[in-house]
Amino acid sequence: MRLLVVGTGLIGTSVALAASAGGYDVSLEDQDPERVALAVSVGAGSPRRAGDPPVDLAVAAVPPAAVGGVVSRLIEADVAPILTHLASVQSDPQHQVESLHPGFAGFVGSHPIAGRERSGPHHASADLFSRRPWIVCPTEASAPAAVAAVSALAAACGALVTVMPATDHDALFARLSHSPQLVASALAGGLAGLDRAAVGLAGTGLRDTTRIADSDANLWAEIVAANPGPVATALRAVLEPLHVVVDALEHGADDRRREAVRDLIERGRRGRELLGGKHGQRAVRWATVAVVVPDEPGKLARVLNDAAAAGVNVEDIRVDHSPGQPFGIVELDVAPDRGALLERDLIARGWSATASPPPSA
Amino acid sequence: MRLLVVGTGLIGTSVALAASAGGYDVSLEDQDPERVALAVSVGAGSPRRAGDPPVDLAVAAVPPAAVGGVVSRLIEADVAPILTHLASVQSDPQHQVESLHPGFAGFVGSHPIAGRERSGPHHASADLFSRRPWIVCPTEASAPAAVAAVSALAAACGALVTVMPATDHDALFARLSHSPQLVASALAGGLAGLDRAAVGLAGTGLRDTTRIADSDANLWAEIVAANPGPVATALRAVLEPLHVVVDALEHGADDRRREAVRDLIERGRRGRELLGGKHGQRAVRWATVAVVVPDEPGKLARVLNDAAAAGVNVEDIRVDHSPGQPFGIVELDVAPDRGALLERDLIARGWSATASPPPSA
Repeated sequence: MRLLVVGTGLIGTSVALAASAGGYDVSLEDQDPERVALAVSVGAGSPRRAGDPPVDLAVAAVPPAAVGGVVSRLIEADVAPILTHLASVQSDPQHQVESLHPGFAGFVGSHPIAGRERSGPHHASADLFSRRPWIVCPTEASAPAAVAAVSALAAACGALVTVMPATDHDALFARLSHSPQLVASALAGGLAGLDRAAVGLAGTGLRDTTRIADSDANLWAEIVAANPGPVATALRAVLEPLHVVVDALEHGADDRRREAVRDLIERGRRGRELLGGKHGQRAVRWATVAVVVPDEPGKLARVLNDAAAAGVNVEDIRVDHSPGQPFGIVELDVAPDRGALLERDLIARGWSATASPPPSA
Repeated sequence: MRLLVVGTGLIGTSVALAASAGGYDVSLEDQDPERVALAVSVGAGSPRRAGDPPVDLAVAAVPPAAVGGVVSRLIEADVAPILTHLASVQSDPQHQVESLHPGFAGFVGSHPIAGRERSGPHHASADLFSRRPWIVCPTEASAPAAVAAVSALAAACGALVTVMPATDHDALFARLSHSPQLVASALAGGLAGLDRAAVGLAGTGLRDTTRIADSDANLWAEIVAANPGPVATALRAVLEPLHVVVDALEHGADDRRREAVRDLIERGRRGRELLGGKHGQRAVRWATVAVVVPDEPGKLARVLNDAAAAGVNVEDIRVDHSPGQPFGIVELDVAPDRGALLERDLIARGWSATASPPPSA
């Protein structure tokens, strides 16, 4: 199987590495010859030369707004019968291709979800997509063989394939990814003007809620600008109930304020339940054991070793560095009936540990 | 030092336990005699009886709206010369006390920050406040001896004391805690109507951003309803720039959309920098090493042991369970110059690991 990857940034080079490892014969192309040379040097494939024969599958690993131009050029030059891209939005690139090549059966969109969106210096890796979802978005004209070829590439990269139409993808990721990014950035932006010591008084909650706010601004400008309608709709759905609360706080009596807050939080709990489960199981509310851990190399491993020695499986873990102190609090989420046991066991092993029950149902 | 704790829920009993351990002579009171008996049984102190002599310090560990009534009753009965409370809001309880006892010098507000706000079955612990911030809020009338007594109680509980006026506290925690809670709940509520499989396609970002959305609705209704003005102001400051983005997405040309998103994300990055540092240092952007970890007891400890063996200190850690799979991705944050080393070392030890550089500056 001959694969051409156009665009040797982090994502393109990672796909090329994984495909090479999976037995594909990979050629590489980029506007910047130095990036191609770098990708070749790490074993991602060989440079594509003028006059090289057509390939079986071409991948446009370029920003969303550039997909249409690249794919169209490859179609017109008969470079590959099947073509895909890897952008985080789907409808806009699909429309670009459809408007230039109506009814073309060889095009299929795709979106590998490689953890957090990052750009910058490109440390590509064949494992970037391992066990991550990879969405495949056929057009109405896509041939089954084209869908199969793109799905096979995703599987060769170790990813878990889900097929859905581009419009469904964009509406879904506006809710799962694009609007959460903007909201987290707005929350973090709301800290402007506070000093570091004051912000240091915040608990783990604010850290969690704003973690993705350090994302790359140009990358997100590309993504959101290419998915404007669904993101606006998703944002409005988040903003509207917050305005109901603001209105109750500013104009309501005490009862109405409580009711507005309670409604919002209850709705959030129901939404969170959709997300909390692992293995597609129902969400579990974990007990949490908070452990005081000196900020020294290896201490985190020691806490987890002691938890493992106690026979307790740690489901999730968070680290909260105390402001101004050489100590942090590590929160371990465990099965509800294991919290008290783990607390006792860690205390017996010399830790300062506190179990809290799961949030009440 | 004789201490009376009124209200033997999670927080009150934890303060009583820590104070008892710190040498205070602690008596306990609650509307519910069974809760007092429970607190006594875990060693939090002895029940307060009618006719017992006055104490040196009384703590009202009751919801914000009940603080004024409890403190006022204790003042009128000459139970203690110095009184405080432990609620997450300060101005409203302070106004309640001031309106009933203008100029009273023995009252000082306080707010221990014990990780996430939780209620429910009460597993109190003497370590709940260990290394956590504890804000002390004197009134204009508070005597220095009263401020010192309340600060000493916080220190005896192992907490890190910060003193500020009640209005500053409420404005600050509206931004650091109350509005993030409401925004996280609104984001999670925005998932309503999606099915579990679709939501399972979300990355770590959404999980982080909505983690606190499983909080207790009644508890938060009490907190936010008692701090309406500052929370409304903080929420408006978060909502306003999101409306600018919605407007650009719905009515702007491509350039304006990008610019609006870029502005929002850049502002968020500056805010996030205030929060990211530990030990009060400047924020550091970490490299991230993603490791595929089978979902088996002890595997998390093994990854961290191997990281420690590689001589790399793990600064933060996140766990992302793959949807429908017996595998998870563990993300380890490490110093920017250690990512590639840790990746190599973990791969050599048999893990599937991928280093990503820090988000670009």
